[in-house]
Amino acid sequence: MVNKSVRLGNNVEIGENVVIEDNVFIGDNVVIGHNVVIKKDTIIGSGVQIGDLTILGKSTSSNKKMARKPEKNLSPLVIEEDVTIGCNSVIYRNVQLKRGVFVGDLSSIREKVEVGEDSIVGRNVMVETNTQIGQRVTIQTGCYITADMKIEDDVFIGPCCSSSNDKYMGMGNFEHQGPIIKKNAKIGNNATLLPAIVIGENAIVGAGAVITKDVPAGKTVVGNPGRIIR
Amino acid sequence: MVNKSVRLGNNVEIGENVVIEDNVFIGDNVVIGHNVVIKKDTIIGSGVQIGDLTILGKSTSSNKKMARKPEKNLSPLVIEEDVTIGCNSVIYRNVQLKRGVFVGDLSSIREKVEVGEDSIVGRNVMVETNTQIGQRVTIQTGCYITADMKIEDDVFIGPCCSSSNDKYMGMGNFEHQGPIIKKNAKIGNNATLLPAIVIGENAIVGAGAVITKDVPAGKTVVGNPGRIIR
Amino acid sequence: MVNKSVRLGNNVEIGENVVIEDNVFIGDNVVIGHNVVIKKDTIIGSGVQIGDLTILGKSTSSNKKMARKPEKNLSPLVIEEDVTIGCNSVIYRNVQLKRGVFVGDLSSIREKVEVGEDSIVGRNVMVETNTQIGQRVTIQTGCYITADMKIEDDVFIGPCCSSSNDKYMGMGNFEHQGPIIKKNAKIGNNATLLPAIVIGENAIVGAGAVITKDVPAGKTVVGNPGRIIR
Repeated sequence: MVNKSVRLGNNVEIGENVVIEDNVFIGDNVVIGHNVVIKKDTIIGSGVQIGDLTILGKSTSSNKKMARKPEKNLSPLVIEEDVTIGCNSVIYRNVQLKRGVFVGDLSSIREKVEVGEDSIVGRNVMVETNTQIGQRVTIQTGCYITADMKIEDDVFIGPCCSSSNDKYMGMGNFEHQGPIIKKNAKIGNNATLLPAIVIGENAIVGAGAVITKDVPAGKTVVGNPGRIIR
Repeated sequence: MVNKSVRLGNNVEIGENVVIEDNVFIGDNVVIGHNVVIKKDTIIGSGVQIGDLTILGKSTSSNKKMARKPEKNLSPLVIEEDVTIGCNSVIYRNVQLKRGVFVGDLSSIREKVEVGEDSIVGRNVMVETNTQIGQRVTIQTGCYITADMKIEDDVFIGPCCSSSNDKYMGMGNFEHQGPIIKKNAKIGNNATLLPAIVIGENAIVGAGAVITKDVPAGKTVVGNPGRIIR
Repeated sequence: MVNKSVRLGNNVEIGENVVIEDNVFIGDNVVIGHNVVIKKDTIIGSGVQIGDLTILGKSTSSNKKMARKPEKNLSPLVIEEDVTIGCNSVIYRNVQLKRGVFVGDLSSIREKVEVGEDSIVGRNVMVETNTQIGQRVTIQTGCYITADMKIEDDVFIGPCCSSSNDKYMGMGNFEHQGPIIKKNAKIGNNATLLPAIVIGENAIVGAGAVITKDVPAGKTVVGNPGRIIR
């Protein structure tokens, strides 16, 4: 079901059982898999590839217990040229995927997130709201990128890393802050990052480390709690 | 394809390519996304919202190696009033989602699980069979909630926490028991909970901690293995 | 949409909104759920069950930043007799699922992977490329199985375990090697395995352990970094 108000470029391939809602824009040479759902207002640049059973442009929702309420006037999802998106993924409104980004299967990106040029968001990665991801960043399979986080250019995050943004675990009523990972830092697999810590430029966090305080630029930290070894 | 035996309330919105099998009951003012599959016998209360590409009421299956065999006469999935369910999720038969529950995208809940009023089961959370979750519980993104576990009211579980229920890792032939988390306890992100441990009321488990024995009420535990610091 | 070139066995059940592309072979007594996508060339043996909203036979893709480029001539996905596959899963071309394998919901298996007879790949498990999994292996929910890994027969891997294959985290230009897990070893939940380590036969890795070097056969290792306790 392609809505009449959809603006379709040249040479667009659309799979079976695809739903494209109102006011969607699709550029040239776009490939859309089977059973894909593209929600209203989504903007898709030329050369984009979208895997089967993926949802683009989801609105937010919530329940009584949630601190963050759904927002009514989120801007659309914008997918720039030559982005590749996997299968069975869910990407929200008010996300910007810059040129050449890769998003793996079974992943999800919440609203108010920007992913910089040529960055990789691996399979089964969950990105929360209000987070900035730089250019040429690699986020490997199964990572959890919390809300209110900042990841600078050329950062590498190994598989299954976890982060958090709330020191008081739901008890407090103040500002949340996720970790800040500076340029070119590298994080090993299954590392745990606490709220608001800063990982310095070129720093290295070992696999399985638990990072409870800032890591100076260029240093290597391992263990639980993390301690500097180099 | 909506089967003839489906009982539909007033003002139900049904997306494209939706499959609703035999003997489903759907209350008033329900919103069902695109490409959703609702399996037979499912009961959906008024005001429920179901995201795109989600499956409700799945039956169990297994293979030769699995200890738990599929059960033939599981009662239906019951979704109470004002529940919100995300996209690309899989919820089994014999689950009860109480009024106001929120279930995120890409999550799955196995059979014989009850989730209490207003609780949150975040994105990409996996809940195993035979587990009880209380009221106003928050289970954040990417958590793994093992089988045979008990989570009391007002518990907070941070992102990516992991739990287990089998001390002998598939070698034994005895009863399994998951962790028991008492009222109002808080668990930091990426913590690891061993089988059958009890986390006391108001206790706090630090991010990345590995909990190998019971945590007394009100105490704070960090590290690997976890030790009491307050 | 079932393509004309599809060869269908006897007594095949096909759900609603299913897409079966060119040159697919489906054996007798196969059950295919709703909204399933079966990509071209896939071979499905007798008695196979496929859950709703699952994708079989995906081709690889990549972006500029990725080291591994998509391969053009991958052989087809082969699913042997009596395999059971869950819902919302994504399985690539050039995967071999041997007789009796079970693959859970929301999981994904990349190309060049073989899963041996009667093994279990749990819900939300991600398996990377070029990995061998033996017979009667159990990989529990939420595990991350890296690329270039070898898992021998009768291994048990608890929930949420993580592994990696690249010591230099994207910096180097040499061969990658994932962990090697020998026969009958057991890994506790949320353990972290570093690149190229060998877990010996009958060894036990504790829950939450971080394994930075080889574990001798029959030994038990816990902690961060892992140390032998028995």
